[in-house]
Amino acid sequence: MEPTRLDELFLREAIRLARRSVLEHGGGPFGALVVRGEEVLGRGWNQVTTANDPTAHAEIVAIREAAQHVGDFRLQGCVLYSSCEPCPMCLAAAYWARIEAVWYAADRRSAAAAGFDDARLYGELALPAPRRRLPCRQHLAVEGELPFREWLAKPDRVPY
Amino acid sequence: MEPTRLDELFLREAIRLARRSVLEHGGGPFGALVVRGEEVLGRGWNQVTTANDPTAHAEIVAIREAAQHVGDFRLQGCVLYSSCEPCPMCLAAAYWARIEAVWYAADRRSAAAAGFDDARLYGELALPAPRRRLPCRQHLAVEGELPFREWLAKPDRVPY
Repeated sequence: MEPTRLDELFLREAIRLARRSVLEHGGGPFGALVVRGEEVLGRGWNQVTTANDPTAHAEIVAIREAAQHVGDFRLQGCVLYSSCEPCPMCLAAAYWARIEAVWYAADRRSAAAAGFDDARLYGELALPAPRRRLPCRQHLAVEGELPFREWLAKPDRVPY
Repeated sequence: MEPTRLDELFLREAIRLARRSVLEHGGGPFGALVVRGEEVLGRGWNQVTTANDPTAHAEIVAIREAAQHVGDFRLQGCVLYSSCEPCPMCLAAAYWARIEAVWYAADRRSAAAAGFDDARLYGELALPAPRRRLPCRQHLAVEGELPFREWLAKPDRVPY
């Protein structure tokens, strides 16, 4: 997959958003765009500390804005441009949103050097649950089936 | 880690939120709570299709609400209760939010049986980038360093 002139243009815009986040908004050094064809559907920069929202990474903000803009949770045919390699949260969000491709500039090693340890988080998520730092345990498995049974019995459910 | 009576109570409440999501809100069959001590700081149910937000999983909604409630992106000392094992997006969000422990009822296999293929997404994220279904490519790596350099040069930055 070779970048086109447009890919390069949008990737530069994502970097510009990251710089503006730092220099103007007091946010983290990350910017992202969701684009369909030549149209920018969503823009985001890191608002974790400014909005007190641990999920407000640039990519999440851009994906949410794009989905609002098109009125659909499916962003088929869209490309995500990010100033930095998406963390596992943002990459998983891209999958859920049906994003078609991702372009990024800096990578997880550069992010780690700037104090953002996304690389470690990738390692954590790849571990089997009992070996992760964050304890994650199952209980009430049988009761937990109830919502799924009610969901499957619902004729007008909207699957995704 | 054995569940306490309170863990059980909050986990049941998360299941109740999941059932209400299906039966009352027309949302997906997932519910979650963020709790500190005995206080519920955030509640969420799946609003992906109802709010056109691919990131609006129950856990993300609950984490965002809790962070707003306490006015801090760090939810130290908090436990996340979810009606179902968190997907990689939500688990990564729990890490970013400094959640201390996670309890869930149904697991990824039950979710898959109900049509939600979180298990496959765990597999994808554990793969090296070139082997993933979603193409994810780097370009403009040098320009991508700029936001980090500006960030590190900023004396009043808020690290996280």
